[in-house]
Amino acid sequence: MSERTRLRRIPENAVTEVAGLHAVLDAARVAHVAFVHDGGPVNIPTAVARDGDRLLMHGSTGSRLFRTLADGAEVCVTVTLLDGMVLARSAFESSMNYRSAMVFGVPTVVTDKLDALRVMTAAWMPGRWETLRAPHAKELAATMVLELPLVEWSVKVSAGPPEDPPEDLDAPVWAGVLPIVSSYGEPVPAPDLRGDPPLPAYFSA
Amino acid sequence: MSERTRLRRIPENAVTEVAGLHAVLDAARVAHVAFVHDGGPVNIPTAVARDGDRLLMHGSTGSRLFRTLADGAEVCVTVTLLDGMVLARSAFESSMNYRSAMVFGVPTVVTDKLDALRVMTAAWMPGRWETLRAPHAKELAATMVLELPLVEWSVKVSAGPPEDPPEDLDAPVWAGVLPIVSSYGEPVPAPDLRGDPPLPAYFSA
Repeated sequence: MSERTRLRRIPENAVTEVAGLHAVLDAARVAHVAFVHDGGPVNIPTAVARDGDRLLMHGSTGSRLFRTLADGAEVCVTVTLLDGMVLARSAFESSMNYRSAMVFGVPTVVTDKLDALRVMTAAWMPGRWETLRAPHAKELAATMVLELPLVEWSVKVSAGPPEDPPEDLDAPVWAGVLPIVSSYGEPVPAPDLRGDPPLPAYFSA
Repeated sequence: MSERTRLRRIPENAVTEVAGLHAVLDAARVAHVAFVHDGGPVNIPTAVARDGDRLLMHGSTGSRLFRTLADGAEVCVTVTLLDGMVLARSAFESSMNYRSAMVFGVPTVVTDKLDALRVMTAAWMPGRWETLRAPHAKELAATMVLELPLVEWSVKVSAGPPEDPPEDLDAPVWAGVLPIVSSYGEPVPAPDLRGDPPLPAYFSA
């Protein structure tokens, strides 16, 4: 833990086991990548996937984000999963349950792009990679993959019921947690879909 | 539009109507706030609610984020909603559908905290504010509310089916979009809930 990853606010919500970091990153598909550009903050969403002790990101070689990061920019990558609305008896105690991970570091360019793309596809669309044609050389050339080592990080988890003071417990309102769940909706076949290929098995996940 | 909010990458996905900005912000509950601290980026999630042409955020007067921002720090606040996985016939064309809004600016401290808290509670828990007791003076004193004017912003929306080149269309795989939907799960009453108050009406939302 470094000074900037030490949680000052509600430190009892801190998670210090690396398994906790992995769990949050593995549950997320999108992270927000902050970096400093011309002296000011820039904050861009990008898809991420964890591979062991590194976080993978990929993008176009033409993107501002990836060109800037490939130059050795320091980043703060944050992932947040909103788990529920916490309805307390007062507005003050009302809050949200969430899991959030923050990783600081300097990304580096991954040379084994094919392997990294396979790992990312496996994370986002399990089993899909094996059913697709291999990437063309020009597709690989147009893609940049970056990795961020999971070294300097913090995780914060807020869970559980509202915590109202005793004097508020008789308020005549419902109190508790409204969980927020993310799921797949009805699949939308591509208009140009040919034949009758089966839906991916993980669709029900 | 400023130079830094001009979308360079896939500019056809840019949304330039302010109604589009409002729609993305109103659909989100959590934003990521990036700022520069000691020369490096910091990226912290926080709950946000739009009120007209300003974005409201609130937090503890004891939080690093809010103390730093109250000092006049420039921020880049980004909101991203993940709408679906786009399964193309190749890994290269596979992607995700999303709506994302980015706002640059310098937040200022809101003096009419009570009104701002009412607006935020209405955004997150419609109708709830009117059922709760008024905030105590010490609760208001412990809360900081910031507003960020919606002046310098960009919105990017990626939607629709995969766009495979003609030579890939005969690949024997399902292609299309797996929508990602967010919904409320089964409510969890607080362990110390008294009586039998009804669930909030918006729970089914």
